[in-house]
Amino acid sequence: MKPSMLFSVSYGLCLALSLLSVIFVICWSSRWRGGFAWDRSALQFNWHPVLMVSGLVVLYGNAAVVYRVPFTWKQRKSTWKLVHAGLMLLALLLAILGLCAVFDFHRGFHIRDLYSLHSWVGICTVVTFAFQWVLGLAAFLLPCSTQRLRSALKPVHIWLGKAILILSLTSSISGINEKLLLTLYGSTGAPYSSLPVEAKFANSLGIFILAFGMIVFGILSKKEWRWPQRQESAYPLLSEDSI
Amino acid sequence: MKPSMLFSVSYGLCLALSLLSVIFVICWSSRWRGGFAWDRSALQFNWHPVLMVSGLVVLYGNAAVVYRVPFTWKQRKSTWKLVHAGLMLLALLLAILGLCAVFDFHRGFHIRDLYSLHSWVGICTVVTFAFQWVLGLAAFLLPCSTQRLRSALKPVHIWLGKAILILSLTSSISGINEKLLLTLYGSTGAPYSSLPVEAKFANSLGIFILAFGMIVFGILSKKEWRWPQRQESAYPLLSEDSI
Repeated sequence: MKPSMLFSVSYGLCLALSLLSVIFVICWSSRWRGGFAWDRSALQFNWHPVLMVSGLVVLYGNAAVVYRVPFTWKQRKSTWKLVHAGLMLLALLLAILGLCAVFDFHRGFHIRDLYSLHSWVGICTVVTFAFQWVLGLAAFLLPCSTQRLRSALKPVHIWLGKAILILSLTSSISGINEKLLLTLYGSTGAPYSSLPVEAKFANSLGIFILAFGMIVFGILSKKEWRWPQRQESAYPLLSEDSI
Repeated sequence: MKPSMLFSVSYGLCLALSLLSVIFVICWSSRWRGGFAWDRSALQFNWHPVLMVSGLVVLYGNAAVVYRVPFTWKQRKSTWKLVHAGLMLLALLLAILGLCAVFDFHRGFHIRDLYSLHSWVGICTVVTFAFQWVLGLAAFLLPCSTQRLRSALKPVHIWLGKAILILSLTSSISGINEKLLLTLYGSTGAPYSSLPVEAKFANSLGIFILAFGMIVFGILSKKEWRWPQRQESAYPLLSEDSI
């Protein structure tokens, strides 16, 4: 099936904003924050925004819309269920690694964990995401689930999936804002309020992330872009029926 | 029509979280930030979070779900269109007043406007909201719009409406986080990182706001809770056909 022009433009924007967000977060950390290390120094912190934006926002968003690409509709849904679950697992692992980076950095500088609202929202996001992944595996991939359970859980899975994306966006924006306030507030260089190049660059990263989120929501909301209903999708991936 | 138990619980939660969010933001500003004034002092700033949370989050979210309350289905949709538009206008006016409060406070302290990512996201939210309100008025209330235009704009109106709610949630969380970082960072009292009562209280406000947003998204996503399709709704409110 040939994708519509509107889908092509939306999906193209989704990919372009994914790339821009990842490039911008890496550049911010390397150009202005000194680069990367895993030694409990300030450089270890820099893995945190890179892993969170790449995993929890970009990879998560792309995994959410994977079923919407018309190219996939000609193939077995079971294959794309595995791709969806695999990408989500990778996103979750990157997010957990991103948490390890910041907790380990805190150890090095004797900073308390989980005090800011950003950290409260962030930890809620990752815990909800892990819960959603396990629930998704049990309900939609393993043969132990019944058709009735899957039908009941599908709207919950979709709602929770969108909720996690909203939480990810909120965590990212509050996190970028927090980092800029803490590093450019009273620093020896130009303060945040004078909008130095770093501030403009990182603020733009925040805007790209939000634009990406809006596009993903737009793609998810179009009914016509959903995977066409076929009998195959009615069975869990690993049940005998789907083999 | 009798509302389902799930709807009653969800809507009850929506109202409870609305109330909690408004009470918490007022208490935070009065108990820990010294109360309210409109004199370019620090007390003028305190109107900003109260007006933004009440208007851009709580009133906006409640106006978005107003069509979902089964009690309204027995009445003319045109009446509830006016309620929806009226509540949205009130939300927009509160948000604009909230912006005036912070810009005027900045004047008093010679602080630059619109430098933080929070402020960039916030101003995008209010501008997009104003655009959406005018577009909604022209397309769904005034008789100048055609049925074809309304059908084409409805999905855009719904998508943009959800996008604005996401932007509002993001602005609120990054704003609360920013205020706590700036006022409790290096202050003479307990720092943010030691999680004094104010920090726990305001962080909880952030969690209530996000929970409210998730519930609103949940209510909006249930197909069965949408306003039943009737001929009346096919006409703009002020056209002769709807009188």
